[in-house]
Amino acid sequence: MKKQQLEKITPRDKNFSQWYTDVVLNAKLVEYGPVKGTIIFRPYGYAIWENIQKILDLEFKKIGVENVYFPLLIPESLFNKEKSHIEGFAPEMATVTQVGDKILEEKLFIRPTSEVLMANFFEKEVKSYRDLPLLYNQWNNVMRWEKTTRPFLRTSEFLWQEGHTIHNNQEEAKKLTLKILEIYSNFANDVLMIPVINGQKTEHEKFAGAQETYTIESLMHDGQALQAGTSHYFGNNFSKVYDIKFQNNEGKWEYAYSTSWGVSTRLIGAIIMSHSDDSGLVLPSKVSPIQVQIINVQNTDQIQDVSTKLQQELDQYRINIDQSDKSFGFKISEAEIKGIPVRIEVGPRDLENGQVTISRRDTKEKILVKLDQVKTTVEAMIKAYDQNIYQIALDNREQRTSHAETIEEYQKILDTNQGLVLVPFCGEIACEEDVKKKTSTNSRCIPFGVEQTKGKCFNCQKDSTLRVYFARAY
Amino acid sequence: MKKQQLEKITPRDKNFSQWYTDVVLNAKLVEYGPVKGTIIFRPYGYAIWENIQKILDLEFKKIGVENVYFPLLIPESLFNKEKSHIEGFAPEMATVTQVGDKILEEKLFIRPTSEVLMANFFEKEVKSYRDLPLLYNQWNNVMRWEKTTRPFLRTSEFLWQEGHTIHNNQEEAKKLTLKILEIYSNFANDVLMIPVINGQKTEHEKFAGAQETYTIESLMHDGQALQAGTSHYFGNNFSKVYDIKFQNNEGKWEYAYSTSWGVSTRLIGAIIMSHSDDSGLVLPSKVSPIQVQIINVQNTDQIQDVSTKLQQELDQYRINIDQSDKSFGFKISEAEIKGIPVRIEVGPRDLENGQVTISRRDTKEKILVKLDQVKTTVEAMIKAYDQNIYQIALDNREQRTSHAETIEEYQKILDTNQGLVLVPFCGEIACEEDVKKKTSTNSRCIPFGVEQTKGKCFNCQKDSTLRVYFARAY
Repeated sequence: MKKQQLEKITPRDKNFSQWYTDVVLNAKLVEYGPVKGTIIFRPYGYAIWENIQKILDLEFKKIGVENVYFPLLIPESLFNKEKSHIEGFAPEMATVTQVGDKILEEKLFIRPTSEVLMANFFEKEVKSYRDLPLLYNQWNNVMRWEKTTRPFLRTSEFLWQEGHTIHNNQEEAKKLTLKILEIYSNFANDVLMIPVINGQKTEHEKFAGAQETYTIESLMHDGQALQAGTSHYFGNNFSKVYDIKFQNNEGKWEYAYSTSWGVSTRLIGAIIMSHSDDSGLVLPSKVSPIQVQIINVQNTDQIQDVSTKLQQELDQYRINIDQSDKSFGFKISEAEIKGIPVRIEVGPRDLENGQVTISRRDTKEKILVKLDQVKTTVEAMIKAYDQNIYQIALDNREQRTSHAETIEEYQKILDTNQGLVLVPFCGEIACEEDVKKKTSTNSRCIPFGVEQTKGKCFNCQKDSTLRVYFARAY
Repeated sequence: MKKQQLEKITPRDKNFSQWYTDVVLNAKLVEYGPVKGTIIFRPYGYAIWENIQKILDLEFKKIGVENVYFPLLIPESLFNKEKSHIEGFAPEMATVTQVGDKILEEKLFIRPTSEVLMANFFEKEVKSYRDLPLLYNQWNNVMRWEKTTRPFLRTSEFLWQEGHTIHNNQEEAKKLTLKILEIYSNFANDVLMIPVINGQKTEHEKFAGAQETYTIESLMHDGQALQAGTSHYFGNNFSKVYDIKFQNNEGKWEYAYSTSWGVSTRLIGAIIMSHSDDSGLVLPSKVSPIQVQIINVQNTDQIQDVSTKLQQELDQYRINIDQSDKSFGFKISEAEIKGIPVRIEVGPRDLENGQVTISRRDTKEKILVKLDQVKTTVEAMIKAYDQNIYQIALDNREQRTSHAETIEEYQKILDTNQGLVLVPFCGEIACEEDVKKKTSTNSRCIPFGVEQTKGKCFNCQKDSTLRVYFARAY
């Protein structure tokens, strides 16, 4: 019978990159698309994204953000107004030059992000301070051409949300930028169970056109960092270029202040590389498409009755009975590969004692539980499960966090215990460029809550005032 | 103060097309985008689409449909395999030819629809009859270049859902095609309150590559028809071209059977042209972003207390208190333009008698209601409101439905009482082409539940076995 045999997954410690690909494909999250750099989200992969969307969307709406949809295509002339923005994106932009056989008069770019379209709209829309703020968000596809493909991490087309807000004063815009960072950070820590460090990007790493970029940074199991979400404060950079002015309450014209912020399907990559293991995915319960999987050892009426009752009793969860005609062993493997947090096995021998077997995906611990204890057991288990996978990721990060005072020390750490390295840093673009050339790594963030002591830059030895995390990153 | 004055809406009977544009722009549903043919969905317009999505998505999931996301771009070589499909879309396809400065080796089309991408995936995925059916859907953007722009009705980029399913037998595929039509039809009738006619498309009007196309057809207030949703049965057309085969339970290889189906943001156009009036939008309650709008006549503590309590009491609805500093009259106009079904005005004089004023958007009827009767009144009013707007649309359709036996009779009706015209029709492509040339109209559907009597074709006078609705259409 086809596909009853699951493919082998390369051990994580043997080849992390191959392990990642094996997990992604075997758990049927995605398939490669026909155009290089594109992926197809299969149902199981897309369902994770839908859960992410639902939870985040609610958080955005709570603070007054409204969803919109702006067009896919940006005229070349409009895009080219903002120079630092173009420089950042130009080489990656897919360009529409014709429709049918007809060559277009102006080239159209597939959006790599939508600041420019939003700015163009705001310019027409905003007249008075009373019109502000506007807090917009969209869930959409964007395109940034990539030479290599890694599902979720590096794809030419990806899905994300991009928030764009515009304000009549600087303080409110800055506050919003940081409020979003807080939403992202809470979401990563409490929903995805990925511990993140909140901080600010250096000049070298900040977003094209932004005054300040804030980030949540996570550390993957292999010690490489991953930027999990960013929030940008533009000041009035975009407003000046796109002429977005409002009349203040004294009737004078001022430039408006804007922000943008986004998380993408990269988060699914971060989930995988934070939590999963040699048996496949380990999904945080809050975004797992299936939270509890019931598997019947045999298909007798009695067993089916019990599992149906359990399904009803546990209907607060996304719960599923595997009704397929696959073998019992196959079903177990599949539930493991898919990273389903809790599995209930209903079998004839256990039922004789009024029991079922419940097991956790993370620790693989199995326990026999009386039928009337299933609900409380599952509830407790899911909580413990989420806490445990968070703790494992946190322990990994802590073991892999170190500090260095010189570039030599830093390079040594990269070779021995790859992870986050806190260094004194001058903050200059040229110096960071130099570090990048020497080590193929860059700064991750100037972390919040870490004392910014004076010292000598770890690379150029100039006076430094910053303490910055550097790391190899995805 | 800016925008306290709402723009005038052209009367519907004076100039339907201008009325439509005025309503769409004044209700702040959309704005035009910088690329011709594109629109920006503002928050209020997008919120209607989100409500449509939520309700339909649930219906799809109930029958086992799973959401996926396939790439935006289709390689030219892949698209060109299916000839009838190409012919249908080639002149409308936006084409990516370069990335940055680099010319691509192969042209890439922005998807006008995704049959080809799905087929390409199914070809690799499907091996055994046990793998089937696969029931996929995606909510996404597609592009079909248009020369003219009419928000929601004719735009180069639009949002939709496209379902794609593949089956191991013909009967199941056909049944699914019709099940989807039923979901669409119930959704139009019961949620959007738009009466629709279910039927099959003629050979001339069926979808590029399909064996059979089914449709729900609606009639707008001005007597023009609008296709509100379609469901296509492909037989094994696509499977043969893209080589999608499965092994049946006897181990023999067979071609699979496929379907596709979609509704788009056109539905918002249909809502507007079915229900709205000279004061602006009239939205069906189930998709209205705000169902109940509370407006305080003054901002005293007592009034604010009452409206806050009412908001809590009516929290089963999407309910909103207009807290802006706009004038009372302006707030009333705005609630009308936005088509909010029910409005509650809380004022000092009414409150002296323990009352508030409740009014309906459709009939503009206003009644004084005791505070303890508000909840039951609103519940009954929303039901009556939805029934009434359905009935008005149905009456309009019935008054505009006629029949003709000859092309002359048909042409006369088009000039006098534009609407749906049932005619005897031969069903031949050439004949329909001829009707189209003569009248700029085409067939809408071969309706279900209408007796298909023999006769002479209204145009070519050949023997006919079909009774078909013809109409001018959007």
